Amino acid sequence: MHTVISSETREVVIGSDRPFCLIGERINPTGRRIFAEQLRGGDLSRIAIDVEQQVAGGATMLDVNMGVPLADEAELLSRAVTMIQELTDLPLCIDSSVVEALEAGLAAYKGKALVNSVTGERERLDAILPLVARYGAAVIALPNEEDEIPEEPEKRLEITRKIVDIATGEYGIPLEDIVVDPLAMPVGADTTLVRTTLRTIELIRDEFGLNMTLGASNVSFGMPGRHALGAAFLPMAMHAGLTSAVMDVRAAQIVEAVKAADLLMGNDDWGANWIAAYRAAQAAQAAQTAVAS
Amino acid sequence: MHTVISSETREVVIGSDRPFCLIGERINPTGRRIFAEQLRGGDLSRIAIDVEQQVAGGATMLDVNMGVPLADEAELLSRAVTMIQELTDLPLCIDSSVVEALEAGLAAYKGKALVNSVTGERERLDAILPLVARYGAAVIALPNEEDEIPEEPEKRLEITRKIVDIATGEYGIPLEDIVVDPLAMPVGADTTLVRTTLRTIELIRDEFGLNMTLGASNVSFGMPGRHALGAAFLPMAMHAGLTSAVMDVRAAQIVEAVKAADLLMGNDDWGANWIAAYRAAQAAQAAQTAVAS
Repeated sequence: MHTVISSETREVVIGSDRPFCLIGERINPTGRRIFAEQLRGGDLSRIAIDVEQQVAGGATMLDVNMGVPLADEAELLSRAVTMIQELTDLPLCIDSSVVEALEAGLAAYKGKALVNSVTGERERLDAILPLVARYGAAVIALPNEEDEIPEEPEKRLEITRKIVDIATGEYGIPLEDIVVDPLAMPVGADTTLVRTTLRTIELIRDEFGLNMTLGASNVSFGMPGRHALGAAFLPMAMHAGLTSAVMDVRAAQIVEAVKAADLLMGNDDWGANWIAAYRAAQAAQAAQTAVAS
Repeated sequence: MHTVISSETREVVIGSDRPFCLIGERINPTGRRIFAEQLRGGDLSRIAIDVEQQVAGGATMLDVNMGVPLADEAELLSRAVTMIQELTDLPLCIDSSVVEALEAGLAAYKGKALVNSVTGERERLDAILPLVARYGAAVIALPNEEDEIPEEPEKRLEITRKIVDIATGEYGIPLEDIVVDPLAMPVGADTTLVRTTLRTIELIRDEFGLNMTLGASNVSFGMPGRHALGAAFLPMAMHAGLTSAVMDVRAAQIVEAVKAADLLMGNDDWGANWIAAYRAAQAAQAAQTAVAS
């Protein structure tokens, strides 16, 4: 199953037979006090640095979230989308829990966006899916309801089934434009939570063959050695069936692990990407050594 | 399913609900010209360094192979086993393709060893399994025959079934003392080979629930960035059902990936091992910085 997301000039295909889709998580004020202040004051200039770093890190897409309390999120998201599309041709993931903000972001976006996200409650589905259909976008579906994350993988599968039925049956959204987020939780809170996520990924792959994405940084939240945990988690999740992640693409160790897993899964023909990435890393290191000496 | 391997004073339990079993691959003259020369001359002193480095790297067991052409492998293996057991209490994996050498190694060994390995040909099974039964050892079973490695995972499963039937039915070896090697091949030779190995692991897990091990370094053979490939491969294989590997435990990146995967799989209660390893790495780094300044 292939999910196609695009900007005006670039197309990204998400699928289990494609290199993993790395969605940069950085353009998001959550946990970034200074950035949130800037956005509240209408200053979006910091975004240019975030775009540059994530493009350099190897992002395939960028997530854009402007969720600042007491700010006009719709206006910020509209401005951010326009600004980012002037800086890069990477397709965007338009991220908000506010329906009006999603609509403003979609209206400003040129191409086929990925909407992040819809949950399983009837009123959320009826508010967000019409937007997704109208703009011809794809959508990330979170299998939870009423702010409660089901503990059992089977329950998450059941809510996925409900969302898929409504999205395809009532709103005419093609099955391949639904990307499921199996819900990644911090292993530091409970060491069984990652196993639950991995099991959910397998169930959704086996029943629907849908593409999936998740917030990979959640897994290591609160633990030391976060990059090493992310670098081990994503290959495991890719083996289970994950085809994309909203993640820290600035962390070289994690990106390297994803590229290695692409090769090992047979999604990097002749190892061309792997070898090119290795050569680039060697050249960067040599340049750094030359500067230092 | 638990496979128990032991030295005189230490027991290692291999199982899917246990931390991954890291078998140090280093005590092996293959590809080590100087070491092979030393062994041919009867000089085993280098082994002490290999033991020390692998214990420091975090090995749970050590593989011992004395396969030097034109040398008395049985005598070398017997001496090496005795010497290593004086240096460490880690259990050993006695590794040879020569039946007499396996017998000499088993005779010298104190504890319950893991025999590496037997293949599916009737004459190999009838030569090696009696030794395994007589010494009460466990055995690594390679699902190949006549030096031909089957391409299809289903064929590997079939040979595994044959070995299991003969080992348990004719030689009274307990099922849990059979550890299957699903056969890891270089991804650089063909990018579909790792997927075949991963699929074989899943099939064997689902049909037998047996413990499995493999030569992890094979996967990255001939490719650049070998440690990064190993660090991505093992978490994927652990998710598929691999419970042990013969591997380069001196490569910190690979060992770290395994420890991270243990935590993510729910086999590191409270993250205690992960946090302890992180603190030790920090302390080592601080000590190094202090020495350098």
